[in-house]
Amino acid sequence: MTEPASPRAALEAFADLDHERTRRRGYPEAIYCPGKTPEQLGMIAAAVRDQPHVTLFTRANKDHAAAILAELPEAFHDQEADLLAWPAKPPEATGGMVVVLAAGTSDLPVAKEAQLTACYLGRPTELVVDVGVAGLHRVLSRLDLLQQARVVVVAAGMDGALPSVVAGLVAAPVVAVPTSVGYGAAFDGLAALLTMLNACAPGVAVVNIDNGYGAGHLAAQIATP
Amino acid sequence: MTEPASPRAALEAFADLDHERTRRRGYPEAIYCPGKTPEQLGMIAAAVRDQPHVTLFTRANKDHAAAILAELPEAFHDQEADLLAWPAKPPEATGGMVVVLAAGTSDLPVAKEAQLTACYLGRPTELVVDVGVAGLHRVLSRLDLLQQARVVVVAAGMDGALPSVVAGLVAAPVVAVPTSVGYGAAFDGLAALLTMLNACAPGVAVVNIDNGYGAGHLAAQIATP
Amino acid sequence: MTEPASPRAALEAFADLDHERTRRRGYPEAIYCPGKTPEQLGMIAAAVRDQPHVTLFTRANKDHAAAILAELPEAFHDQEADLLAWPAKPPEATGGMVVVLAAGTSDLPVAKEAQLTACYLGRPTELVVDVGVAGLHRVLSRLDLLQQARVVVVAAGMDGALPSVVAGLVAAPVVAVPTSVGYGAAFDGLAALLTMLNACAPGVAVVNIDNGYGAGHLAAQIATP
Amino acid sequence: MTEPASPRAALEAFADLDHERTRRRGYPEAIYCPGKTPEQLGMIAAAVRDQPHVTLFTRANKDHAAAILAELPEAFHDQEADLLAWPAKPPEATGGMVVVLAAGTSDLPVAKEAQLTACYLGRPTELVVDVGVAGLHRVLSRLDLLQQARVVVVAAGMDGALPSVVAGLVAAPVVAVPTSVGYGAAFDGLAALLTMLNACAPGVAVVNIDNGYGAGHLAAQIATP
Amino acid sequence: MTEPASPRAALEAFADLDHERTRRRGYPEAIYCPGKTPEQLGMIAAAVRDQPHVTLFTRANKDHAAAILAELPEAFHDQEADLLAWPAKPPEATGGMVVVLAAGTSDLPVAKEAQLTACYLGRPTELVVDVGVAGLHRVLSRLDLLQQARVVVVAAGMDGALPSVVAGLVAAPVVAVPTSVGYGAAFDGLAALLTMLNACAPGVAVVNIDNGYGAGHLAAQIATP
Amino acid sequence: MTEPASPRAALEAFADLDHERTRRRGYPEAIYCPGKTPEQLGMIAAAVRDQPHVTLFTRANKDHAAAILAELPEAFHDQEADLLAWPAKPPEATGGMVVVLAAGTSDLPVAKEAQLTACYLGRPTELVVDVGVAGLHRVLSRLDLLQQARVVVVAAGMDGALPSVVAGLVAAPVVAVPTSVGYGAAFDGLAALLTMLNACAPGVAVVNIDNGYGAGHLAAQIATP
Amino acid sequence: MTEPASPRAALEAFADLDHERTRRRGYPEAIYCPGKTPEQLGMIAAAVRDQPHVTLFTRANKDHAAAILAELPEAFHDQEADLLAWPAKPPEATGGMVVVLAAGTSDLPVAKEAQLTACYLGRPTELVVDVGVAGLHRVLSRLDLLQQARVVVVAAGMDGALPSVVAGLVAAPVVAVPTSVGYGAAFDGLAALLTMLNACAPGVAVVNIDNGYGAGHLAAQIATP
Amino acid sequence: MTEPASPRAALEAFADLDHERTRRRGYPEAIYCPGKTPEQLGMIAAAVRDQPHVTLFTRANKDHAAAILAELPEAFHDQEADLLAWPAKPPEATGGMVVVLAAGTSDLPVAKEAQLTACYLGRPTELVVDVGVAGLHRVLSRLDLLQQARVVVVAAGMDGALPSVVAGLVAAPVVAVPTSVGYGAAFDGLAALLTMLNACAPGVAVVNIDNGYGAGHLAAQIATP
Repeated sequence: MTEPASPRAALEAFADLDHERTRRRGYPEAIYCPGKTPEQLGMIAAAVRDQPHVTLFTRANKDHAAAILAELPEAFHDQEADLLAWPAKPPEATGGMVVVLAAGTSDLPVAKEAQLTACYLGRPTELVVDVGVAGLHRVLSRLDLLQQARVVVVAAGMDGALPSVVAGLVAAPVVAVPTSVGYGAAFDGLAALLTMLNACAPGVAVVNIDNGYGAGHLAAQIATP
Repeated sequence: MTEPASPRAALEAFADLDHERTRRRGYPEAIYCPGKTPEQLGMIAAAVRDQPHVTLFTRANKDHAAAILAELPEAFHDQEADLLAWPAKPPEATGGMVVVLAAGTSDLPVAKEAQLTACYLGRPTELVVDVGVAGLHRVLSRLDLLQQARVVVVAAGMDGALPSVVAGLVAAPVVAVPTSVGYGAAFDGLAALLTMLNACAPGVAVVNIDNGYGAGHLAAQIATP
Repeated sequence: MTEPASPRAALEAFADLDHERTRRRGYPEAIYCPGKTPEQLGMIAAAVRDQPHVTLFTRANKDHAAAILAELPEAFHDQEADLLAWPAKPPEATGGMVVVLAAGTSDLPVAKEAQLTACYLGRPTELVVDVGVAGLHRVLSRLDLLQQARVVVVAAGMDGALPSVVAGLVAAPVVAVPTSVGYGAAFDGLAALLTMLNACAPGVAVVNIDNGYGAGHLAAQIATP
Repeated sequence: MTEPASPRAALEAFADLDHERTRRRGYPEAIYCPGKTPEQLGMIAAAVRDQPHVTLFTRANKDHAAAILAELPEAFHDQEADLLAWPAKPPEATGGMVVVLAAGTSDLPVAKEAQLTACYLGRPTELVVDVGVAGLHRVLSRLDLLQQARVVVVAAGMDGALPSVVAGLVAAPVVAVPTSVGYGAAFDGLAALLTMLNACAPGVAVVNIDNGYGAGHLAAQIATP
Repeated sequence: MTEPASPRAALEAFADLDHERTRRRGYPEAIYCPGKTPEQLGMIAAAVRDQPHVTLFTRANKDHAAAILAELPEAFHDQEADLLAWPAKPPEATGGMVVVLAAGTSDLPVAKEAQLTACYLGRPTELVVDVGVAGLHRVLSRLDLLQQARVVVVAAGMDGALPSVVAGLVAAPVVAVPTSVGYGAAFDGLAALLTMLNACAPGVAVVNIDNGYGAGHLAAQIATP
Repeated sequence: MTEPASPRAALEAFADLDHERTRRRGYPEAIYCPGKTPEQLGMIAAAVRDQPHVTLFTRANKDHAAAILAELPEAFHDQEADLLAWPAKPPEATGGMVVVLAAGTSDLPVAKEAQLTACYLGRPTELVVDVGVAGLHRVLSRLDLLQQARVVVVAAGMDGALPSVVAGLVAAPVVAVPTSVGYGAAFDGLAALLTMLNACAPGVAVVNIDNGYGAGHLAAQIATP
Repeated sequence: MTEPASPRAALEAFADLDHERTRRRGYPEAIYCPGKTPEQLGMIAAAVRDQPHVTLFTRANKDHAAAILAELPEAFHDQEADLLAWPAKPPEATGGMVVVLAAGTSDLPVAKEAQLTACYLGRPTELVVDVGVAGLHRVLSRLDLLQQARVVVVAAGMDGALPSVVAGLVAAPVVAVPTSVGYGAAFDGLAALLTMLNACAPGVAVVNIDNGYGAGHLAAQIATP
Repeated sequence: MTEPASPRAALEAFADLDHERTRRRGYPEAIYCPGKTPEQLGMIAAAVRDQPHVTLFTRANKDHAAAILAELPEAFHDQEADLLAWPAKPPEATGGMVVVLAAGTSDLPVAKEAQLTACYLGRPTELVVDVGVAGLHRVLSRLDLLQQARVVVVAAGMDGALPSVVAGLVAAPVVAVPTSVGYGAAFDGLAALLTMLNACAPGVAVVNIDNGYGAGHLAAQIATP
């Protein structure tokens, strides 16, 4: 129970970074910030500074971000998506196009987390906002873009109906990410989650509520060159 | 605990029919069959034979129906909707048009229960089948009919997304009835129910799962002359 | 990822306002504030300033309201219902009467949101408070008013029993809005929601928990001239 | 694992009857039949034949009942409530009046289980059927009877709203027993259970879904002389 | 929408006090504070100042209490139970003994709310703390007291097992009030609620989670003279 | 309400086949059998006989299958997966390899539904059984095959842990299909569903419980040439 | 898709038996019968005939049992616990005593599954029935036996309160297995499961609902010599 | 309602410490801090100062800790696990080895609570961090340590899959403690809880969500000398 003596030992007291992951899986590890202290994140940031591959820090609150930026002041930081990336420059885009839709303005943080993740994993991306099913003309007016996608990511809360509609319009798989946006019986995203799992059009891949990172990662794998 | 002596007393041992309801509310009472024995339904059928207003028997299984038809052989009986009506001839249609949509073939029994209920409460009705959101062109091709409706009833299971889409297209209120159709996480209609409660387009009135009778009754009230 | 250059472009980065909605559906769009930043709401407020139709801002917290009022200082603002309306003067009332009941004092914010919405969509409205079923004489004493309504909106938490009782007393449809008022097993409105979906009297249209806006909108559609 | 040699040993292999319970608690034990084999129930019936106090067998299906009646052919058997009692003659009625209400015909089996239980535990009882809140006049017309009760038992499914209404009308405590009657979102009695737990009128004691036995037992304890 | 002109009108804008309730039901109304503003509670406090019967204010937070005490400085105030009573002196105790058990220290606020409610409704009461089933000797050592009770109230969180044990030991009915005390899968009292509804000993009356007021009210009715 | 006069009209009374779907989405429509009568399925089978593209009939029970085979006696029929395909010969395999894993023997019907669907949509497939995480060596011994897959489908019930493990081992996306296999708290697949949505390794695409068809369709889209 | 040519290949088409498990974990594999066909179980039974270690077949219905006994006619078969064991003679008992309690008669099948599993994994066992908390004297009278146990297994449905009480009385760990016994809000064992997870006495290890096999296995591991 | 006169009486007003528990069960009582005031905890701390056995204070927030340390300044305090122990020196370690695994860094507080509890109850312990199933090599590299354990405690959130994997690798029982770590559909630990209850490898003992204390206590009992 004495204090560890070196930075490396201090880091190993709470984390065992998986630098081999890029080699093994082809995609780098991301650091999920909630439940970690700013001090722990600062140590992790220092440890990845010289890694050759991209490191993403997801769901970083203000204190998390400050601790990371203290070690990596040049890191990319998107405050809407609560995401940081190091190094800041994404890899050159290869593979198929990832089109990300946000059903409403409130779904934008999750949608951006998905888009940025796919971008930092090396895919070309497009982001389209405010295309909810209450105004079908909005989504129909984007049909050309949608049909060019290798994969479409749809972030939607409330009724979560957009993935069903989109999947009925395109040949590409749809990654559906429910968001916790909505009134009472939205139950923090449960309603949208169930809608998406029950999409009447096949081809809908569901990820966890508000999990923009997971959606973007899955999309990048699907659209791999 | 001795047996009741007369048909009327026998009936009163388990039911207290509300013949005054038509006068009070303007709509007749319906008999919900589940949980009643065929004998009880036979007694009720006999008791309503000479009533001036329509009586509906809902969710009647085969034994229920046989017992009712034994007393009222001329009654209308729709075996898909499990509904009987007495007298068989619906009242003359007045008020606004009630358009009923079934998202898929499996939603048809519930949709028909809604349509027949509205019809027997005196409204003009139309029924349209297989217009799920996985093929948007199907619903868009019915836009003319939808825009003539005073109220639209939508029966849908699985993702329950159709009411959101329809409500975004018409000025009329939409009565949404979730059905228990679907795979595992449909949870016997819970998924569709939550979708409809969270419809991102306003103007969606939700009723209980598989409650075609309630949907038709509500629609008839909305479309009252 | 550079900043957009114009107000319009800035707005389009997160929202695609549906000015056509009034023409298409006959009712204007409302802006749901949660999940939007005050800055975004300020931009939206500026964009609707010269629109001919009413715009409602719902669920506006203090920061939201301040940002909207900075652009539209003459807007109507009800702090109990967290609702703003622009322009402040509602349209002339047409159509049937919308009577709104609040079961208890704690249900008043939701009831007022419903009433104000119906009012700004052009209907005559009445609001009655504290008519819970624990004191039946209270609701029975309002029977005259209730029977004049084209539609009754009932906001109730806890047991959510009031819509069942009201629907048994009137010919008009009842829009039931469960509120998140109550002790533990109210489960933030779930108990009232289920009660209303299972109302033993037909004619109850359920909307989402605490969704006064949706209830008022639906009522306005039902009571359309 | 060899077979037990005597009836008593055979009985003790699966049950340890609590004959002392009447002395200790003042009320005899009941035998809950589900999960027991007809053979086991036959052995139990034989074992209680000469007990001085009443034994109730609850939730007995046809096979259960046949096995019990083979040992105790004079036992009382109500097939609607699936209840048997031995000896058949209930004790003389003492204590306060127990009034049992069934909201609808489908709630009658549970209501009768409650009434019969209270009766066999020695209370005077009354049973009233079909007094749901959709027709308030029905319950109001029984106000005299209700106000004479020492305790009122209310069995109701669907919205479960009747206990709230009754509790607002009488000084006596109300024992509310939700039934599994209703459409989809009744969730086999869960909706009625939550309604009753959230009754806006105090004085409502809730027991388990369909638990007529428990309701009758509790009522008998409340109305004890 | 203009401001009401008199205190009475101001009060009627949000509440319709039921002074007749004492006459009708035999027990006075209680004011449930959550969802009401301090201003509203101040107006209610002023309105009940000269009422002859007791008024209880339940679940009063600090601001609520201050507003009430500003109008009724002599009122009784228990800060652990968040309850105020006016007038401060409880009525003379009549009827049977109400014994209240708190399973653990954390259940004490709810238990006290129950005890104080029964006390102000006119019953003799006793409160016993820290008698959880993990140390059975604690509850067994109180058997004498328990057997003198006309009704026992048990407040318990976590496993909620105490009512089952107590009901097996006494002839009196047990009012079980689950509390929201416990680790994760206690689900804010849901676990204890279900335990109590499934008590294997009959005679357990369940009220809502943390509803000490309801438990005390019900107990007072059961123990009425 | 008169009977339709022609086969086509009879079909249109309950279904509106989407033959255009192959052209629009690139994948043919499947017929979901539950909720359809054998007669309806016979009519659909006759209607697709001369279509150029593959038609799948999913979740066909014995009566469904008999009615389909009466019209299409040469159709492929797998009784374990409850799936029929017409024409029986799958298209030539193109695109990436789809590897399907069944965690246990009981997951095999769902896994086969996935494999057959992918096969009939034109992909090369492999099926591996009984590779649950309780014996890690089983899955590790298949690492070579897994690493050749363009996409891995994993069908698992009970704890649903296999997708997490597989996703940590391969670069390809994993389509996870929870099955309803397991004891009580498996809750008919809900436990496995939640596990998969929370997979700690990114790259897991979840579909509905027991939805082998959806899993196979999604996999075919991901592995498209 | 052609039929496999040999018994071994036929077996490998749906199962990959883990004969190494005994060596690796020290306990043999069990065959979970649900979801397997009698034919598959017959093949498995044939394959284990000459294995040196014990094989358990759990949750075997009548058809399963017949198929297994056709291959292994000397196998042990307990029809109450739906369990078969091969070879029939359990290993010599070593390690600590496993005491199994069944709260009620209906919990006996699960309790026996636990006891038999522990017995066939080589532990000395005792089984005690009908010791529910509604009659505390029953469990207290077994205190001597309980205090000799190295581990106590408790099978209980309904309120699931027995493990809390037992854990408060003994030093040994308690393995709690909830059963699906009970009325409505028992929710097929969910209530008992939550009770046990929230046991106010530490030392309670919970397994899945009705999972007697798992309880017995865990107990055998805890009581290992 | 007058103030108690002595420290002992003050303590007894809210708690009844069970000093006999060590003698009866062999393990001392722990004080669960939530729901207790700092004043109450200070009184308890004073009361245990001279007890011979260890007292643990669990889930102590800052105010709790300060009040305890004011009375017992030499007490051990781990701020990550929110645990205090008095006296600070743990007893000499006896019995089998308890190995505690934390699946991720965010699970560390719960894992440490488990480890410290086992340590203060007298067992030798080891703690290993960041061994989630997304990187199987991490857990496989610890196989030697795991196979020396008498019992393994696994703390895991998100998918909660680690206990299944570990239980498949070792002969020792696994105590699985789900943590509330994870995205939306983790539902505050419910997902991990269900996973663990459904572990496909037998030998997994589940405790409540985030209940590190319970896990450590159970492990200490299993590993008793």
